[in-house]
Amino acid sequence: MTKKRKGRLFIISAPSGCGKTTLCEKLLKKMPGVIRSVSFTTRLPRKGEKNGRDYFFVTKKEFEKKIKRNNLLEWARNFGYYYGTPKDKILRLLDRGVDVILAIDVKGAMKVKKLYPDEVFIFILPPSISGLRSRLKRRRTDNSLGISMRIKIARKEISYAHTLVNDDLKTAVNTLEAIIIAERCKIRGKNGQR
Amino acid sequence: MTKKRKGRLFIISAPSGCGKTTLCEKLLKKMPGVIRSVSFTTRLPRKGEKNGRDYFFVTKKEFEKKIKRNNLLEWARNFGYYYGTPKDKILRLLDRGVDVILAIDVKGAMKVKKLYPDEVFIFILPPSISGLRSRLKRRRTDNSLGISMRIKIARKEISYAHTLVNDDLKTAVNTLEAIIIAERCKIRGKNGQR
Repeated sequence: MTKKRKGRLFIISAPSGCGKTTLCEKLLKKMPGVIRSVSFTTRLPRKGEKNGRDYFFVTKKEFEKKIKRNNLLEWARNFGYYYGTPKDKILRLLDRGVDVILAIDVKGAMKVKKLYPDEVFIFILPPSISGLRSRLKRRRTDNSLGISMRIKIARKEISYAHTLVNDDLKTAVNTLEAIIIAERCKIRGKNGQR
Repeated sequence: MTKKRKGRLFIISAPSGCGKTTLCEKLLKKMPGVIRSVSFTTRLPRKGEKNGRDYFFVTKKEFEKKIKRNNLLEWARNFGYYYGTPKDKILRLLDRGVDVILAIDVKGAMKVKKLYPDEVFIFILPPSISGLRSRLKRRRTDNSLGISMRIKIARKEISYAHTLVNDDLKTAVNTLEAIIIAERCKIRGKNGQR
């Protein structure tokens, strides 16, 4: 089978504490063909963190050069430190047909989604607010939680998004895998082309 | 978790000889929560066929009443016999949150898709023309095969469709399952509402 399809970008986003990192690690073990994008940061590595695996740890000067040269898909500054998503590497992988996972905070995800509206957008929700998911499916009037607001914004910007509740790690990993398998079967039509 | 989502309609379509029926049977065994829609026909049951399982075998008069009363999602006449998809039953199941599989020929699928453009559309391709799939993903100029034409039509009408090649039954069943799991995670936005 001649196979020269483009890779898909899976933007996996979650509020902190949802187990996003563990989920992605487990997934990558199950699907070795998928590659996770590693972000740049100017903060110092924490104990146990490895350069190139957890982050690419760079200097402020290096980071600001990347901003100037438009080398980042998106970037943000939190508590004085820069965080950014590499651009060229991701685009190169996608061109080669590799599926890329981008584990990212909700704000960053929204920025990437604006640039690449046809890529796959996945929200992880913590079990404690799993009810939110079904509520959101029915009503759009839930204003009590920040996450809800953000999902609502996301809903306006994209017609379809995936949400999954991480109440059971194994199930959540399998569901993530299912989303990737399903997306690989998709023909992209007029609105779905890069 | 309060769960009152609507069911999804999975329109599984294939040219004859692709193993669509076997595929659906295996899938239903794996996913007992999913229900397959059983069509009406006026042709006589073949050996081994069971009323209510393979088809609902009805008289010409009964069938024409269904047409008149608008009780069918779609219908067609082939070789003098009527074939049709029940409407009320499918809509009732979807309303109750049940996912419904509709195994149907390509022509019928196109009709259903026009009525319900946001439902899930899956093309099964036989292994022999699996190359077609990747070709279709790159070019739109393949006019040599009827199936190709039809997929092209489908592509124009829907922005996203799933195609899967039935070259290995187990893989194909797993992929179908993955599509259903993935669709269940979707938030439907503006364009995705019923």
